[in-house]
Amino acid sequence: MYHLAFYNFLLLILFMSLIVVGSMAFDAIETPFGKSDKIIGGAATYIAWSASNFTKPIKQISVVGGDFPEEELTALKARGVELEGVQIKKDEKSFFWSGKYHMDMNTRDTIETQLNVLENFQPVVPESYQDCEFLMLGNLAPAVQMSVIDQMKTRPKLIVIDTMNFWMEVALDDLKKLLSKVDVLMVNDSEARELSNEYSLVKAAKKIMQMGPKYLIIKKGEHGALLFHADQVFFAPALPLEDVFDPTGAGDTFAGGFIGHIARTKDISFENMKTAIIIGSAMASFCVEKFGTERLKEITKEDIDIRLQQFQDLVNFDIELR
Amino acid sequence: MYHLAFYNFLLLILFMSLIVVGSMAFDAIETPFGKSDKIIGGAATYIAWSASNFTKPIKQISVVGGDFPEEELTALKARGVELEGVQIKKDEKSFFWSGKYHMDMNTRDTIETQLNVLENFQPVVPESYQDCEFLMLGNLAPAVQMSVIDQMKTRPKLIVIDTMNFWMEVALDDLKKLLSKVDVLMVNDSEARELSNEYSLVKAAKKIMQMGPKYLIIKKGEHGALLFHADQVFFAPALPLEDVFDPTGAGDTFAGGFIGHIARTKDISFENMKTAIIIGSAMASFCVEKFGTERLKEITKEDIDIRLQQFQDLVNFDIELR
Repeated sequence: MYHLAFYNFLLLILFMSLIVVGSMAFDAIETPFGKSDKIIGGAATYIAWSASNFTKPIKQISVVGGDFPEEELTALKARGVELEGVQIKKDEKSFFWSGKYHMDMNTRDTIETQLNVLENFQPVVPESYQDCEFLMLGNLAPAVQMSVIDQMKTRPKLIVIDTMNFWMEVALDDLKKLLSKVDVLMVNDSEARELSNEYSLVKAAKKIMQMGPKYLIIKKGEHGALLFHADQVFFAPALPLEDVFDPTGAGDTFAGGFIGHIARTKDISFENMKTAIIIGSAMASFCVEKFGTERLKEITKEDIDIRLQQFQDLVNFDIELR
Repeated sequence: MYHLAFYNFLLLILFMSLIVVGSMAFDAIETPFGKSDKIIGGAATYIAWSASNFTKPIKQISVVGGDFPEEELTALKARGVELEGVQIKKDEKSFFWSGKYHMDMNTRDTIETQLNVLENFQPVVPESYQDCEFLMLGNLAPAVQMSVIDQMKTRPKLIVIDTMNFWMEVALDDLKKLLSKVDVLMVNDSEARELSNEYSLVKAAKKIMQMGPKYLIIKKGEHGALLFHADQVFFAPALPLEDVFDPTGAGDTFAGGFIGHIARTKDISFENMKTAIIIGSAMASFCVEKFGTERLKEITKEDIDIRLQQFQDLVNFDIELR
């Protein structure tokens, strides 16, 4: 008995971890406050940088071209991100997106999208990833996200997906199939409205949860995020900031903080998901302070703790009912 | 000594109360979900209905025409609202506004405005109102709001004003003079941006507080409300609702809950103002559930307590820092 318990303990600390799937890419960003060169971006990049503050190892699945900088991969490895599942297509180019933000920083125009390596991306789950308990599927074609789920020999304890309006328009059937297989869906407010055909987010949430996910997170950018589950709802504010410098990756950084906390605590209760979306919001508040992943690479555990305290001061109150 | 203490105690319970100034009027409202007849509205009406859940007496200052229903005045009196300061111009008509809301319920078009009695409104503060500690000035021309402050022989302990973008455009100098005399300003997000010429609400708040008010409340409709004071900030969410039926008066109802709680507790600390904006948000969440003041007239103390508990469940969390 003692040996079995010890073996289980080893399993717990050594093998149970997080798979992150998504793009690793280049972005070129213009905001009312400045313009970036071609910089490192991609959903899985932001998720991994954010989640690696909370859990290790992170088992990454993605695809890059020969143009993706070696030092970026090295930096991720140093954060505890395993790259066995990252395909490197030496003779091709990485995914590229360029866009321009409007003054409100909640809306943006795409200037250019080059799919490149992402066009024929077929994710392969390495054998060494099979023991993972938590699966975070960043925004990709729903069929590509589904193929990762299909490759898992044991269903992960929690499957979280992010998606976007584009897939609701060109791949709604695939998306609906996928939704029936996942636990947590993350979308923004306009996507929730589009997917449900309901304007009220409360009604939208009810309809979407009937499509499969037991938990729904609706991201509202500078207006915070809502977590729905059955008849329960929880709200995480966004931190009011003097300057939002670049919102690119904020949603992915939010996802990274969320799943990083869940993977660290291994607790998928609604109560713990509340904490997870506060942590996601705190991580996102760092992301927007500088271009790209720059700020995420600088912050320390202490910075995160101070910011979490700010969130507590921002919303916590005590009412003595009369 | 004993007699002096007893006299002070009598003063406290008998004479220290709340003055509410603002319009009492008719509205005709169209929303994506329905259309009202000509119904009772006006800032001071909503404020009084809301505040009267928390404090008595409320000393009302307003003006109505001969067309204003006697039973509405009687209903307010029954709630502890004193009407000595409400001028009744028998041969004139009450202020009338009609408007139409867009799908998002945060924006609306004015269809018609008839100033009527409001055109030459000169508020008079009755002698019996002079002992009031709390002054809530609902949206009116800044010069009219100022004339109430000028008539007070003793400066109230707390002066709160609401205003709107219209006055920033036609009476900015009057508004700036007024701002230098008040403690708390309530505006919505677009008004805060217009007044400060800053997009970031944090920067806007800093600039506006330099104009006079030590406290600034920025109302964001369905996205909640922010309370600023010096370097502190607190956020009250809006309750996610299945249906927002009619947002008319929600801002005034918020103000009524805020000042009603402050007047009840006689505590003007930042900590207590946090509670006050949560109470304001709870009251506003009732207001939007039916047309006009209908819902506000129905709710009980128990309804309010249940809703405050919902606000607590919506945002309160506990993070154990790692």
